[in-house]
Amino acid sequence: MKKNYLLTPGPTPLPPQVCEALAKPIIHHRTPQFQAILKEAVEGLKYVFQTKSEVFILSSSGTGAMEAAVANLLTSGDSAIIIEGGKFGERWTELCQAYGIKSEVIKVAWGKVFNIDELKDRLKSGQTKAVFATLCETSTGVDFDIKAIAQAVKNSAAVLVVDAISGLGVVDLKTDEWGVDVVVSGSQKGLMLPPGLGFISVSSEKAWKLINQSRSPRYYFDLRLAKKAWEQTDTPFTTSVSLVVALNAALKMVKDEGLENVFKRCGKLAQGVRMAAKALGLKLFADEGCSSRAITAVNVPAGVDGEKLVKTMRDVYGITIAGGQAELKGKAFRIASMGYLHEFDIILALSCLEKVLHQMGYKFELGSGLKAAQEVFLIEN
Amino acid sequence: MKKNYLLTPGPTPLPPQVCEALAKPIIHHRTPQFQAILKEAVEGLKYVFQTKSEVFILSSSGTGAMEAAVANLLTSGDSAIIIEGGKFGERWTELCQAYGIKSEVIKVAWGKVFNIDELKDRLKSGQTKAVFATLCETSTGVDFDIKAIAQAVKNSAAVLVVDAISGLGVVDLKTDEWGVDVVVSGSQKGLMLPPGLGFISVSSEKAWKLINQSRSPRYYFDLRLAKKAWEQTDTPFTTSVSLVVALNAALKMVKDEGLENVFKRCGKLAQGVRMAAKALGLKLFADEGCSSRAITAVNVPAGVDGEKLVKTMRDVYGITIAGGQAELKGKAFRIASMGYLHEFDIILALSCLEKVLHQMGYKFELGSGLKAAQEVFLIEN
Repeated sequence: MKKNYLLTPGPTPLPPQVCEALAKPIIHHRTPQFQAILKEAVEGLKYVFQTKSEVFILSSSGTGAMEAAVANLLTSGDSAIIIEGGKFGERWTELCQAYGIKSEVIKVAWGKVFNIDELKDRLKSGQTKAVFATLCETSTGVDFDIKAIAQAVKNSAAVLVVDAISGLGVVDLKTDEWGVDVVVSGSQKGLMLPPGLGFISVSSEKAWKLINQSRSPRYYFDLRLAKKAWEQTDTPFTTSVSLVVALNAALKMVKDEGLENVFKRCGKLAQGVRMAAKALGLKLFADEGCSSRAITAVNVPAGVDGEKLVKTMRDVYGITIAGGQAELKGKAFRIASMGYLHEFDIILALSCLEKVLHQMGYKFELGSGLKAAQEVFLIEN
Repeated sequence: MKKNYLLTPGPTPLPPQVCEALAKPIIHHRTPQFQAILKEAVEGLKYVFQTKSEVFILSSSGTGAMEAAVANLLTSGDSAIIIEGGKFGERWTELCQAYGIKSEVIKVAWGKVFNIDELKDRLKSGQTKAVFATLCETSTGVDFDIKAIAQAVKNSAAVLVVDAISGLGVVDLKTDEWGVDVVVSGSQKGLMLPPGLGFISVSSEKAWKLINQSRSPRYYFDLRLAKKAWEQTDTPFTTSVSLVVALNAALKMVKDEGLENVFKRCGKLAQGVRMAAKALGLKLFADEGCSSRAITAVNVPAGVDGEKLVKTMRDVYGITIAGGQAELKGKAFRIASMGYLHEFDIILALSCLEKVLHQMGYKFELGSGLKAAQEVFLIEN
């Protein structure tokens, strides 16, 4: 018998409520019945996005929502600053390149704390139309200080665009309070759904002005069309009906738990993973000052084949965690702490990690990782 | 008690096998387990697309796949011909406009047979890079003769791009045999899935040459990235895992029935709707020579409120058919004959149609529509 458990940073496991919603008979998208569902979904998203402005639902993965941000805000030749500290920061750079944007890339060493001063310096030119940042960099397990970034950008002419695909509903992001102009996200992380929905909030007049000015070609992701359709509680193109129905089931769970409590739960799970890793004598990839609530990257110890470790956990024992991406391939593994995950899921994953590390000849005291996590999970609040 | 039945031209009803697949626990998309699923899906799609070339799965609705075709094949300033005979033909025109394409639009009167000579004439200039056509125009219930169009385009330098969103797996489209360069489709019509997947096949060197030449900005829909990823049995961005799993369940059903049999079944259902409408004294919107196998548009008779008819069927009796779109709003209703629909579903929808027409004061012999459909369905083959 093999049981499967998913602890990857997207997709995250589906709650039974979501599975049930997905299995429902489908309804037509241009009916009052579906309009009511769509309205509820957008209201729920506003709660999670912490904005009073509209959030648009796109039938795409998160990258589609990222492209929507670039294509709608900027025109070839415009200048942008990209804060790039991992594979997903690089995605902003690639997108801007595809659209002919003059990009100034601020390279942040992977796993290190971002120094806000470089951003402040670069913004002085006054030429920047948009700053692209990442809430949680999934490839390195780093959370960025969006509040500080927003403060720096607010005093400039630029808009701030945040990729919150991994971070949304896991890491606090006070869109309106901090003045984040545009936030993009996806369905398969904190929102506990299959991949297939992208979300984008537009929360400032400054951003709408750019959207109306942009001459980049766009149609499917055109936010002007999305805005116009939304005036009739509609989407410009057929939306992913089943995923939207399931989104409401997931949003209800988030509301019932309360956003603040979700943040706390995820933070504690990540803390459990970090403490366990340390107790096992493993090194965390990200610096303490920027380690993520959503995902923890752990360095593979010397003498252990990192790819084999992840494969064995998955193919022999059914526990799927993520390996390292790009320059971290084989050098790190990553355990998620977001979405429909609970402390006992983390314990279960850690027990498998201990078992396979032991089998691979790594020396440590069996159970010491579990003990460290147990201690974290005992602490109230 | 109210039971709900869906007879709209997308979404079409979900078979239980698809609902079950959607409700399964999710797996990670970058695993050998999912790669096997993805491979099976692409193989199944090739069968339905009738091509030996690759078919790419996009996480988007069909319109996203249409945009992928335009953005990948053409650059601002390029010339294209659009065969436009309804709302979805117009979508090609709008897309080309968004991308700065010089479009020659061949306007086909809604519901009328397309005259191939105008296309042949226009192709003589030799300037056309692409011809955009529609297999089944959902807004009017018209099937286009793609075989004849392909023959005309084949002798030119242009590529032929066919929107088969509604038509695929319903209306015969011999991609390779007829030489159709690019075909786009979606998941929520003949393929019996929720909306959320787009498909695009590229079946000629001519098309790949244009794709490699195009300077239109693109990233999420970039087929060069899709092709490169597919070399590793991967997608460039997170794919809609659950929908792809369900796609295999649906493709298995299509294979088990056999594509030819599916065509026959849908054709007979459409014939049943047409004969019933005639027996009820109603006029079909589309001319006989081009009436669709996938959907039938019927003119609302004088004295009947078309919007109220559709609403009553849906909100009082639970039978959802489609109203008229754009210039046909209130003037026509549309009944689908594709996907997971069977002759008894059509009978059921017609019985509701008769009932509501009767209640609305339209004069006809009760049961005469049902009788006409029954007669069609009695005929073998």
